[in-house]
Amino acid sequence: MNGKLSFGCDYSKGAHPLIMERMVKTNLMETPGYGSDEITVSARNRVRMACNCEAAVVEFLIGGTQTNAVMTDALLNNCQGVISAETGHISVHEAGAIEAGGHKVLSLPHSLGKLSPGTVEAYLKDYYNDANHEHMVIPGMIYLSHPTEYGTLYSVDELRSFREICDNYGISLYVDGARLAYALACPENDVTLPDLAALCDAFYIGGTKCGALFGEAVVVPDPERIPHLFTLIKQHGALLAKGRLLGIQFDELFRDDLYLRIGEPAIKAADRIRKALTEKGYRLHFGSPTNQIFCILENRLLKAIEEKVEYGFWEKYDDNHTVIRLATDWGTTEEDTTALINALPDIL
Amino acid sequence: MNGKLSFGCDYSKGAHPLIMERMVKTNLMETPGYGSDEITVSARNRVRMACNCEAAVVEFLIGGTQTNAVMTDALLNNCQGVISAETGHISVHEAGAIEAGGHKVLSLPHSLGKLSPGTVEAYLKDYYNDANHEHMVIPGMIYLSHPTEYGTLYSVDELRSFREICDNYGISLYVDGARLAYALACPENDVTLPDLAALCDAFYIGGTKCGALFGEAVVVPDPERIPHLFTLIKQHGALLAKGRLLGIQFDELFRDDLYLRIGEPAIKAADRIRKALTEKGYRLHFGSPTNQIFCILENRLLKAIEEKVEYGFWEKYDDNHTVIRLATDWGTTEEDTTALINALPDIL
Amino acid sequence: MNGKLSFGCDYSKGAHPLIMERMVKTNLMETPGYGSDEITVSARNRVRMACNCEAAVVEFLIGGTQTNAVMTDALLNNCQGVISAETGHISVHEAGAIEAGGHKVLSLPHSLGKLSPGTVEAYLKDYYNDANHEHMVIPGMIYLSHPTEYGTLYSVDELRSFREICDNYGISLYVDGARLAYALACPENDVTLPDLAALCDAFYIGGTKCGALFGEAVVVPDPERIPHLFTLIKQHGALLAKGRLLGIQFDELFRDDLYLRIGEPAIKAADRIRKALTEKGYRLHFGSPTNQIFCILENRLLKAIEEKVEYGFWEKYDDNHTVIRLATDWGTTEEDTTALINALPDIL
Amino acid sequence: MNGKLSFGCDYSKGAHPLIMERMVKTNLMETPGYGSDEITVSARNRVRMACNCEAAVVEFLIGGTQTNAVMTDALLNNCQGVISAETGHISVHEAGAIEAGGHKVLSLPHSLGKLSPGTVEAYLKDYYNDANHEHMVIPGMIYLSHPTEYGTLYSVDELRSFREICDNYGISLYVDGARLAYALACPENDVTLPDLAALCDAFYIGGTKCGALFGEAVVVPDPERIPHLFTLIKQHGALLAKGRLLGIQFDELFRDDLYLRIGEPAIKAADRIRKALTEKGYRLHFGSPTNQIFCILENRLLKAIEEKVEYGFWEKYDDNHTVIRLATDWGTTEEDTTALINALPDIL
Repeated sequence: MNGKLSFGCDYSKGAHPLIMERMVKTNLMETPGYGSDEITVSARNRVRMACNCEAAVVEFLIGGTQTNAVMTDALLNNCQGVISAETGHISVHEAGAIEAGGHKVLSLPHSLGKLSPGTVEAYLKDYYNDANHEHMVIPGMIYLSHPTEYGTLYSVDELRSFREICDNYGISLYVDGARLAYALACPENDVTLPDLAALCDAFYIGGTKCGALFGEAVVVPDPERIPHLFTLIKQHGALLAKGRLLGIQFDELFRDDLYLRIGEPAIKAADRIRKALTEKGYRLHFGSPTNQIFCILENRLLKAIEEKVEYGFWEKYDDNHTVIRLATDWGTTEEDTTALINALPDIL
Repeated sequence: MNGKLSFGCDYSKGAHPLIMERMVKTNLMETPGYGSDEITVSARNRVRMACNCEAAVVEFLIGGTQTNAVMTDALLNNCQGVISAETGHISVHEAGAIEAGGHKVLSLPHSLGKLSPGTVEAYLKDYYNDANHEHMVIPGMIYLSHPTEYGTLYSVDELRSFREICDNYGISLYVDGARLAYALACPENDVTLPDLAALCDAFYIGGTKCGALFGEAVVVPDPERIPHLFTLIKQHGALLAKGRLLGIQFDELFRDDLYLRIGEPAIKAADRIRKALTEKGYRLHFGSPTNQIFCILENRLLKAIEEKVEYGFWEKYDDNHTVIRLATDWGTTEEDTTALINALPDIL
Repeated sequence: MNGKLSFGCDYSKGAHPLIMERMVKTNLMETPGYGSDEITVSARNRVRMACNCEAAVVEFLIGGTQTNAVMTDALLNNCQGVISAETGHISVHEAGAIEAGGHKVLSLPHSLGKLSPGTVEAYLKDYYNDANHEHMVIPGMIYLSHPTEYGTLYSVDELRSFREICDNYGISLYVDGARLAYALACPENDVTLPDLAALCDAFYIGGTKCGALFGEAVVVPDPERIPHLFTLIKQHGALLAKGRLLGIQFDELFRDDLYLRIGEPAIKAADRIRKALTEKGYRLHFGSPTNQIFCILENRLLKAIEEKVEYGFWEKYDDNHTVIRLATDWGTTEEDTTALINALPDIL
Repeated sequence: MNGKLSFGCDYSKGAHPLIMERMVKTNLMETPGYGSDEITVSARNRVRMACNCEAAVVEFLIGGTQTNAVMTDALLNNCQGVISAETGHISVHEAGAIEAGGHKVLSLPHSLGKLSPGTVEAYLKDYYNDANHEHMVIPGMIYLSHPTEYGTLYSVDELRSFREICDNYGISLYVDGARLAYALACPENDVTLPDLAALCDAFYIGGTKCGALFGEAVVVPDPERIPHLFTLIKQHGALLAKGRLLGIQFDELFRDDLYLRIGEPAIKAADRIRKALTEKGYRLHFGSPTNQIFCILENRLLKAIEEKVEYGFWEKYDDNHTVIRLATDWGTTEEDTTALINALPDIL
């Protein structure tokens, strides 16, 4: 909009063209509200099939914070809290939405945005060993995001370890998939939708950052797990009157498995950028494999780049350096990527 | 969708064509998130101008229940409740969203969906006269909807009386305008947007039922009234990542005052239907002037009509009669209206 | 304290002398906190035996509003509300404590403070018949008080009907026994502690108004019914550090079944007062059988009585008459009762 | 009770004998409820005088967690959180009571249980510098305890620094004085009640651990600061029906400044124990000056001591050592202290 190259976030564009087409084509159709229409029914079925989980409850919500708040409320009882990496979205960037619902976020140390099963298990063990644990918030679920805030990935083996811990301690496993398409399109990733359905009490498939105008698909594999989910969604103000708008988007995203491929341009672009940065002498802050690139820059370079590129400030590295975040998305073009690379001065 | 004439509700279609056009045209544009983009800035300004209130805070939310929950939380302190007609949307049809935020809905008797200033004032007087009132929920605001759930209208004089009561008791006035366009397009209505801005602590201009895909525009005339509104919206999971989608819709709805006229087809159609019903020998349940028609039907007629028409069940009238609700909207065509009228058997 | 006869409420005195004795005797004893001491263990067992329910969870809380808030939170999930008479304590006089916990009080019409099983069943039937019920607060439990706010009593048959309704609809039955001792001491009452344990999901045995300094004994007959009750109590700020203070009180109240008899003086006094009022020409507002007397007085008499007697204002009857409430308690003496009767002018 | 020396906590006994005497003496007196009686009025005045703050609002609550939850709710708006040391009572040991009220505890690193003004200021600066801070919980108050959970003390200079930070950032300062008597009786302490009244938005004077059966006195120096505090207390289930029971206790605790001296025996005993431990060759974990003693023990010694002494487990030190906590209180006798010292084997 301002003529700069847009790599500041992965929600700056609208939706995948197929979604816009369907939206326009169906615009004056008249359907019943609140997700009871036929398009939404079809979208639910496509999501179930992609997850290889016919029985799953699938509900479409509007945004990530909302979804996390609703599902935390749905999976926890009143005196339970949720275990999260201290860098987790629910821990830092949701303005206290989880606490507004009455639940404490039990923040644990992370490694590149990831929780380790060992850390979580030690926390749970300590909790139950503490003679005063009944005076403390009961850990009731584990919150993971895949990819994490740092763009890193869990392996399916790690998820299995978390599942085992959950089973041992009688707690729930929930995965925030706000950027899930970028995991699924990533060669390093070995976690599939059916894996998530097999291992989680609930998870969501992100639309907002992955090709939709807005929308997240919640999947609850066991249909008995959460009674009254519909009413809870309504109570949270999260029920869209014209529910079909969500149905349309996920019906398109899951037509012919589009969602499994939609992140590919983002991953390719990110890989090119990471390679170019290294070749030009930049230092990556850490090596995340998905659509986010974290790079350490000398502060004197920031200004030059700022004129041509929208990027995200990540954190101060030291007095002379800053970590910036570049994000690609489903719609990032090769031209934009080339332009970005050209805009980065060679510093060798 | 099922071939029936669709008069069951006013949110069965998509959006006004101008909105869809703009949505498509801007789809691949890249803008910053969360309502900080230029389109949203423009939409805010158009709303302010239409309300004749340059200083107002204008925020765009997604749906009505969400907006009511956020604004109740914003306008009340912890031990205050909200006065509403017992038929108010917040009292009955929001799944306890207000209570989930910790606030009691103080339900008072209604007349055709309306609260009367006298009823409210008597309630407040009784409350403060009660020796135990400090053990009771403190009334902190009055919730009205315009039009009401029954499609009826407040006069500007009535709103002035409510304002006076609010000033006397130090409480807030809030108006839910989910169907506001249908009031504004109605000859019987004398309440303007500048009136609402002059009289309310906050109100919202409904988009979902009035030409938008979704979206409600909250107006807070006094910019000092609610600190931290943005963060509160985020906390409620009500902040749209791609905020411009709301900006686009209200920028179109308030371009050339479209919103002031957009309800006209609905009112014309509803008037035709009310007239036709009477001529054909049907009894109206009560005479609301906006886009909802409440008609008493013999049960034996229901089935015949059901085959051709989507309508809403309102309530049982007696053992042999039912009250049904027909709703028109901004997109109701003359053809559909004629077809509906023809589908209603003459019962004289 | 002011020399007046004290009939204004049933919580104006301290505790039964046996409680004070035990409190003094054990004062410098050192015991572990939070109800894990031996006295509390003994008190729990005595309550269980009195309820003929060996397996019951028994917890001691401090006051009635607190207990109702904790137990509503314990028995309901997030999107459920509690059915109560519109005159119920939770509905009117708890400053929104139930709503602060996120639950709507679903107020239904009462008859002399009582809910009828028919009213409740009709409400539940209507709820589930409503096509939009999933947009409404889910009724999750029935709140009764025994005696009610009006001093009236349920029969065990009525309680059985409520239980049946609860079983049919899968909801919980909870009884607030703030004044339970005055029911148990009342000849008209046929509800026993074992009946309550057999019929309720949870109930509480009131101490504050029935001989204790403070304290209410929660009984949950099925020990599996509420996991984490201890932590929930702590979370509500309802866990007394020196838990034995509650243990001592209930250990005394349930030693030799004192609690079953402790209300007798109150009932005898109330009966004498009701008889005397009638004989002197006063009109009772209604005929409650327990420790509260509701009497219609000409306003000109109020002032004269006010000089000698503490009484409670109940409500305006008409322009010339007022309904007052007189309350007796476990410590009301025959002398005070005689003095009160003598203080009431003969109006025949 | 079990014959062991009781140094496990500071709430194992009943109340100071003067309190018990008054309780017994006034037991059958009849007074109005909810703290409107004359004894409570007198107690409020004594607290105000001790704080040198005639205008202060003084309310008596029952316990610490309850008080912290009520006051956090009272001092914060909906989207604000409370800054606390990560070891703060509200952060760890209140079962999520603060979060149940909708507020996040913003935990910061501590040093021996204390927050440093520098840490807090840096946090606030970072918060406001963060471009996304409106997506994060707004820091709305600072929670300190004096003494801290580690028995350490703030200086009045440190409190002044916190006050300055609060003024700069427009946030509130709140001090939890659960063990305040042990600070006031401590030679190292330079913080007086008038200092607290001059520097805090609110604080509480602990009764439960400092000579009362139960009870905490909340002081709000500016009477305009918290409207509706009474109703908020009621809503939290924290209003005692027989309010005079709290009045009696604080009327005694503040008669002739008893509260200022009541902690002395505890401090003397703790000093003796610390000295004896050092002389016998034990290592103190850190040198807190109040009524708590933290000592590192070889595990093999634990068992021997356990047979004679109730102590508190604090934390594992290493594989062979454990940190234990010994607590003295207002009623600790010289005999008990001598017996404890004798029970500790010499390990030099």
